Amino acid sequence: MSLIVQKYGGSSVADLELIQGVARRAIAAKNEGHRVVVVLSAMKGETDRLIRLARSASPDPDPRELDSLLSTGEQISTALFAMTCQSLGEKVKSFLGFQAGIITSGPHCRARISSIDPARITTELAKGRMAVVAGFQGIDRGGDVTTLGRGGSDTTAVALAVALGADVCEIYTDVDGIYTTDPNVCADARRMDRICYEEMLELSSLGAKVMEIRSVELAMNYDLPIHVRHAHSPKEGTLICREDPSMEKTPVRGVTHSMNEARITLTRVKDEPGVAARILQVAAKADIVVDMIIQNTSVSEGGLHTDFSFTVPLPDYGRTMGLMGGIVSDLHAESVVGDDQIAKVSIVGVGMRNHAGVAAKMFQALASENINIVMITTSEIKISCIIEKKYAELAVRCLHDSFDLAKGDGEG
Amino acid sequence: MSLIVQKYGGSSVADLELIQGVARRAIAAKNEGHRVVVVLSAMKGETDRLIRLARSASPDPDPRELDSLLSTGEQISTALFAMTCQSLGEKVKSFLGFQAGIITSGPHCRARISSIDPARITTELAKGRMAVVAGFQGIDRGGDVTTLGRGGSDTTAVALAVALGADVCEIYTDVDGIYTTDPNVCADARRMDRICYEEMLELSSLGAKVMEIRSVELAMNYDLPIHVRHAHSPKEGTLICREDPSMEKTPVRGVTHSMNEARITLTRVKDEPGVAARILQVAAKADIVVDMIIQNTSVSEGGLHTDFSFTVPLPDYGRTMGLMGGIVSDLHAESVVGDDQIAKVSIVGVGMRNHAGVAAKMFQALASENINIVMITTSEIKISCIIEKKYAELAVRCLHDSFDLAKGDGEG
Repeated sequence: MSLIVQKYGGSSVADLELIQGVARRAIAAKNEGHRVVVVLSAMKGETDRLIRLARSASPDPDPRELDSLLSTGEQISTALFAMTCQSLGEKVKSFLGFQAGIITSGPHCRARISSIDPARITTELAKGRMAVVAGFQGIDRGGDVTTLGRGGSDTTAVALAVALGADVCEIYTDVDGIYTTDPNVCADARRMDRICYEEMLELSSLGAKVMEIRSVELAMNYDLPIHVRHAHSPKEGTLICREDPSMEKTPVRGVTHSMNEARITLTRVKDEPGVAARILQVAAKADIVVDMIIQNTSVSEGGLHTDFSFTVPLPDYGRTMGLMGGIVSDLHAESVVGDDQIAKVSIVGVGMRNHAGVAAKMFQALASENINIVMITTSEIKISCIIEKKYAELAVRCLHDSFDLAKGDGEG
Repeated sequence: MSLIVQKYGGSSVADLELIQGVARRAIAAKNEGHRVVVVLSAMKGETDRLIRLARSASPDPDPRELDSLLSTGEQISTALFAMTCQSLGEKVKSFLGFQAGIITSGPHCRARISSIDPARITTELAKGRMAVVAGFQGIDRGGDVTTLGRGGSDTTAVALAVALGADVCEIYTDVDGIYTTDPNVCADARRMDRICYEEMLELSSLGAKVMEIRSVELAMNYDLPIHVRHAHSPKEGTLICREDPSMEKTPVRGVTHSMNEARITLTRVKDEPGVAARILQVAAKADIVVDMIIQNTSVSEGGLHTDFSFTVPLPDYGRTMGLMGGIVSDLHAESVVGDDQIAKVSIVGVGMRNHAGVAAKMFQALASENINIVMITTSEIKISCIIEKKYAELAVRCLHDSFDLAKGDGEG
């Protein structure tokens, strides 16, 4: 008998019929002999409705009040879930964040869980009952309701699973697992049976939307397996777990792409100490997150110069161009050049560590389709290339093909 | 500078425009130099929407879950109120029942406030800020969210006013005060400037719907004045306060009627000790609240017999008839006769204590319109008559006229 935390997202509890389906699924797991704790998001559309109300009440709603408002979404879905279970003959209690002992710190609307005392949940489990917990919310030391920001319900589920010493955290969603790449882009995309935390973190950072980074990190820190699976299918999904030797057999396990980038270059910056820091400080001060940074020094007329390039999130592009325009003469740079027609394609795999020639194979594959590489960054288990946006999908397909990802990796 | 608790009902916060009006009103009171605490109901329609959801989830929703669900209504209205105030330049914090220190006991869905520790509210007031509190809700000793049942937000407002030592509790509603009778029935109905707690309690018990009995009782126990007034009019309403000598000058201050009654008679019950108790026990066991009780003993063939009559709420009529049918032979009674075509008209006034002939004048007034009286009950400050339902409105008008209620009572 294991302890399972099941988390269902907003689209899985969008109406009472779906809630009933989810309730039956949770009850079935309990009837198989497991101890079951359910974590729910708000019914799909509810959070958007509340945000619209808040925006109408105030152009810039107070975050503390927004948290109190938004947390009602999960309060409603959990109460309805508990009622539904009762109508199916199963006694279940719902718990709000503060009732589940979820203490947070940090700012409203993006609080972080600092501790969990799940005493009330364990009491229910000891009585042989299920518990359903409102995701996305907690309470701070001052007694105020907080929310955890994007992907908050996943974080609740994983953190609660850790606190309860659960055997697995099941994330039920509207896809049936983690794919080798985006199936909308590449018809050959294949669901993976297993993926390790590190790979999942890279994929999430690089554009895969299934899992939020925070909850993967948390699971990794406590070695808690996450099972990502479809809410309305009995099939197994993808297990996010510790790296095992089989995963290293293949150099590349996933391809991802992101269209949410723009590139900015300061040309012919004088190559002096402190110039890079100066540029990045301007961005940081404006709360702009710089991703890739590349500096190409070259000797030319008048001494050492460098073209300094970096990427920022697309929504910050215009603002960043303005800021850089403001310092271009201070830096004795020639000009600021921007490009928002770029994409980032990446390959990820823990096996990369032990396989030589992966980068070369990637560049060759792109070259064979006449795709020019603008920037490159690497880490131990991933390689990312900035290319022209129009080639993004083609690049994904050609990399997926080159690394034989459709074929499976013998993982079982 | 006084401390004012203002309570606004659901129709006063039904949409964001109305919430803004209410926010301006509260801010105006603060700008006049008062310390202001606002208590809100849910936006009109929201509670009904949630109850419909609950009924769809389960035919008999668990009361604990229903409380968690319904309490979101006030959570939403208070958060939106606080945001609206902020957009108007006023810093206001919202507080849920548990944050306002409202501890309850008793069953879910009709919990009672057992204590209030308004420390967080007083902190806000000390900082020169307003606070807005979610009405209708509290938390029990086990940490579960509770609701207070019908009229619960009024109770929250009055109890909080008592706990804070407020000077007055203002109840803002969609009528502009307490009337001498129902203005829909009698065009001459007049708003009273003042009414004492005892009169208000009788009027509420006898069918007036403006104030719930519990909150009037609470205010009376702590001698807290309640000001009932219109949410969207600047005019003064009616002050519910301690009895003063001026009120005793007039014998009758209000007329009320209720169509929500039915009468049941067991005929020719043997007049023995314990028979009345037996009948009422059967009703009590079925949770049926008996209102008026009348027993007419007469000597007839076969010894002492009595016709035993009582009234019950109309919705319990059928059930009560069935129960009485079941014991009619045990009691050696002749038959059970029911009548659901009745109404109760009542006159109320603390001056009745010192004025003779009030009852006679009432009966005469009804007789002059050929209205037959079926049952009568009296208390120190009220007289109620059961009459045929079809005469209810006529009776109200003729009593209002006979006791000169349109004219005013020199109260000021």
